[in-house]
Amino acid sequence: MLTSGIDGVKEMLKLNPWDEVILDLKLADIGNTMITTLKALEGVGDAVIAHSFTGIEGSLGELSQYCRERGLKLYLVLAMSHRGWPLEFTEKLLRLASEVDPHGLVVPATKPELIRLARSLFPAKVLISPGVGVQGAREGDALCAGADYEIVGRSIYAAPDPFLALSKIVLSQEVRVNECKGAEAR
Amino acid sequence: MLTSGIDGVKEMLKLNPWDEVILDLKLADIGNTMITTLKALEGVGDAVIAHSFTGIEGSLGELSQYCRERGLKLYLVLAMSHRGWPLEFTEKLLRLASEVDPHGLVVPATKPELIRLARSLFPAKVLISPGVGVQGAREGDALCAGADYEIVGRSIYAAPDPFLALSKIVLSQEVRVNECKGAEAR
Repeated sequence: MLTSGIDGVKEMLKLNPWDEVILDLKLADIGNTMITTLKALEGVGDAVIAHSFTGIEGSLGELSQYCRERGLKLYLVLAMSHRGWPLEFTEKLLRLASEVDPHGLVVPATKPELIRLARSLFPAKVLISPGVGVQGAREGDALCAGADYEIVGRSIYAAPDPFLALSKIVLSQEVRVNECKGAEAR
Repeated sequence: MLTSGIDGVKEMLKLNPWDEVILDLKLADIGNTMITTLKALEGVGDAVIAHSFTGIEGSLGELSQYCRERGLKLYLVLAMSHRGWPLEFTEKLLRLASEVDPHGLVVPATKPELIRLARSLFPAKVLISPGVGVQGAREGDALCAGADYEIVGRSIYAAPDPFLALSKIVLSQEVRVNECKGAEAR
């Protein structure tokens, strides 16, 4: 059993050579506060998720500069996976994302049209996609729409056997991706 | 010297009978994640600040219900104090705030016109106002515009003598409020 809190995260980091540890803090504050938060977490994680919504001057501009200096990858949220998220902000958030030029973007698996749009506008950015499983998207759907990674939470950590759940999800992703790639090739 | 983290906050809560302890978490996530965060902080604080921009279904709706059940006061951010905050979202955020019907709203001291608007639209809500001091607004300006409380951070906690700094700020507020009330009465 792991300890909770930052100590628990640090224990978990020692368990395995993870490819990339992303802190899903969904930071949404002034630059000073977001940087203070990251300083408290120094050495924990390779990347961090922030909202794009707060704008640049006094917020994302400072955060982005801090992340560059520390070699921390920054992901910005373009939209969230739940039904209530106000999609009318998308155009502005795309402009903010373009200006901040982060390492990657968070685009929900529940909104595949938005993943396609983000992929076409930002061909080189890493797109990560939450909303798979409990929140309603099928495994592989976001990958088919152009995402690089799918974020799966509760379907794994709330499963009686998380490793088995994970293996099944990876299999479902492969099946789905083969289907959609096959459909494209036809 | 206080411990940092949640234990530090708990120690501080014991020091004095605070009127209202507001957790400025600026929550901005799906309902499930925001509620999990609050459960981890159970018993700490009387109120919490969340962003309004995440929308209602799957996010603020669930948070708001949880807060009501627990007697936790909810404050929603209508705008932030820094220059880059996108004011074009204000109309939508006012509608979201009206629908969620929180205990109070966060409206920045750096945007007094918005405080006036929020006060006229929500006469009974508690308006709290950050951005005083280091971020540029003068003490008392937000109170004059209709806010109930001003939030002062760095001018107090980064001062060599925080209690002296606090006393001076309260005095400046009183002077300013007397000025503007006097001007209104004339």
